[in-house]
Amino acid sequence: MSLDRYIISAPGKVILFGEHAVVHGKTAIAGSLDGLRTYALFEKRIDEYLELNLPDLGLQQAFLWPTSVLPYNLVNNIETKDGPQNLQFNDILLQKIKSIVSNGQDNQEINNIQQIAAFTFLYLYTCLKNNSQTSWNGMTICVRSNLPIGSGLGSSASYSVCLATGLLLAFGYISSPYENNEKQEIKKMSELINLWAYQAEKVIHGTPSGVDNSVATYGGVIVFTNGVIQNIRGTQSLRFLLTNTKVPRHTKTLVENVRTRLENFPKIVNLILDAIHGISESFKEILEKEINDDQELCTKIEGFIDMGHHLLNSLGVGHPSLDKVREIAAQYDLHTKLTGAGGGGCAITLIRNGNFFLKKKIHYNTNNTIQ
Amino acid sequence: MSLDRYIISAPGKVILFGEHAVVHGKTAIAGSLDGLRTYALFEKRIDEYLELNLPDLGLQQAFLWPTSVLPYNLVNNIETKDGPQNLQFNDILLQKIKSIVSNGQDNQEINNIQQIAAFTFLYLYTCLKNNSQTSWNGMTICVRSNLPIGSGLGSSASYSVCLATGLLLAFGYISSPYENNEKQEIKKMSELINLWAYQAEKVIHGTPSGVDNSVATYGGVIVFTNGVIQNIRGTQSLRFLLTNTKVPRHTKTLVENVRTRLENFPKIVNLILDAIHGISESFKEILEKEINDDQELCTKIEGFIDMGHHLLNSLGVGHPSLDKVREIAAQYDLHTKLTGAGGGGCAITLIRNGNFFLKKKIHYNTNNTIQ
Repeated sequence: MSLDRYIISAPGKVILFGEHAVVHGKTAIAGSLDGLRTYALFEKRIDEYLELNLPDLGLQQAFLWPTSVLPYNLVNNIETKDGPQNLQFNDILLQKIKSIVSNGQDNQEINNIQQIAAFTFLYLYTCLKNNSQTSWNGMTICVRSNLPIGSGLGSSASYSVCLATGLLLAFGYISSPYENNEKQEIKKMSELINLWAYQAEKVIHGTPSGVDNSVATYGGVIVFTNGVIQNIRGTQSLRFLLTNTKVPRHTKTLVENVRTRLENFPKIVNLILDAIHGISESFKEILEKEINDDQELCTKIEGFIDMGHHLLNSLGVGHPSLDKVREIAAQYDLHTKLTGAGGGGCAITLIRNGNFFLKKKIHYNTNNTIQ
Repeated sequence: MSLDRYIISAPGKVILFGEHAVVHGKTAIAGSLDGLRTYALFEKRIDEYLELNLPDLGLQQAFLWPTSVLPYNLVNNIETKDGPQNLQFNDILLQKIKSIVSNGQDNQEINNIQQIAAFTFLYLYTCLKNNSQTSWNGMTICVRSNLPIGSGLGSSASYSVCLATGLLLAFGYISSPYENNEKQEIKKMSELINLWAYQAEKVIHGTPSGVDNSVATYGGVIVFTNGVIQNIRGTQSLRFLLTNTKVPRHTKTLVENVRTRLENFPKIVNLILDAIHGISESFKEILEKEINDDQELCTKIEGFIDMGHHLLNSLGVGHPSLDKVREIAAQYDLHTKLTGAGGGGCAITLIRNGNFFLKKKIHYNTNNTIQ
């Protein structure tokens, strides 16, 4: 049974340990952000238009394309229902879609992020619509998100998962979990969502690691090594405070700088990456173990946080704003590390269970920016 | 020919790379401090008294002991002239000397550092006087130093080298380099000085690494791994700015904390120590190599400095005051790392050749303390 309207939601993520090292084959640990999510409303239209509303990207007037402009002929006969694990990215299709978006919007200024959001939607739509025989054709989509963009919190991946899920549902590749909640079937459907979300991530990022879309698809905590993703169901619940320094940074440059440092000082930097790997593996171990002493658990994790932060600094991806967050949190005996690419962006602070907030009030800057 | 008066001088040191890691068998690199030294004036007395003046330790009235109170009977027949490489430390002698110092000074308050300075002198004196047939017996010694104490700059080692040299000269174990400047002979004499300075360091520190006395004895830059010392005669000259945060710290506690962290997280911390080792080895390599491009050399060393500092932070031996020095220096594009035990103490900043001081004036705090 195909419905005429869906609301899809997918969470953001934080990398807990292993950022940057993951690019060089080491293990990273990421967790989903319960409170920071992207929501997408999909509605079937009776006409044959695609309407994409992106109010949180500052798009004044929705994108509107007739479905007939899309180059379905460029899409190969992809066996998506059987979940091909190695979908080839269709760069010719993407180039064609780029020209469609550029030519079709004369009446408003479109910024880079809005454009990429449009490419991503049309790319997935064209690929998935191709073979579909369902009644969905035209549709109106409205995407909302409380995730800041470009802060390493996986906003693009949660957008990608929303699009993939909505389109896979609309075109009948998957069914709603309310209709089919068999465990094995849900697993298969999740894999298909993740696969297409990864394609969307490729439109956005070029060569994404696959961590973000996996967390946004599966939720919880995941362990990621060399493209292999493992969910961990820890027995422990951990609370983190997330601080956005609002200092903008450029992930690609930071990744490139680490690569240069690795090339210049292989003997040193390889060991640093291995040490970061060791933190991820040790963290995974203690999450899987039954540790009854909550204080002991937190003390260990605080050790990982401190070492993790300084090791990232030693790769050259720190920023004074992040150290400022550490310094402020340390006044309350709290331990902080940068999360994501660094060079600004966000920091996470472990909140030990207990009422520390009652002991001492934290004063924020009036403009909420740490500089 | 034995003279009646000597002035001895020995330099302080900075650890450039490998602090803390050296405790766990890794390589450290240390350099002597040309401008910060200890000076000792030795004068033969006609009476049989030992007078030790320590004005820079705040000693109001000189120590004065009759040579007859010393327990020569506790000293074994040490073959010091042949330079025994494994001198046994004589703890029974030290305990006896401690009681002599404690009982002999009723008329002024003696603080801990003054006491240790007295123990060290009397320990060396008793050991070396034992077999000596020279005319020196009573002597007046005045020690001056511009090295701050307990800042990791090797003040105790330079004191130890001054004492060892002065006493070895007075008792005829070595001769002045003005009398005997044969290379092989000077090498032998230096080894003997270093050996006895190491004994003095044991009185002061218990289980010193041997780095400090080696630098104070030989000068220049030394490489130290597992007790083996190698001098390097680099072709490069490097300038460092030394900043004393004046934040006091406790070396033993810091060393202990690193050991605890190593025990708690061996998989991670061993790799960090190896990475620090890698920095020392890489630094040694480039010092020994002919690098014509001075800018390239400095860029490499700045990389070592940054990584070295953050790796020490990841061992938990950092301090906000040290990060503050880094932050201030970074405003002038200068790179800084902590030196020594950390937790306060000193930082070193590489000064690239060129007139950066003329470009921008550095403003100091009025009280010269960084907090």
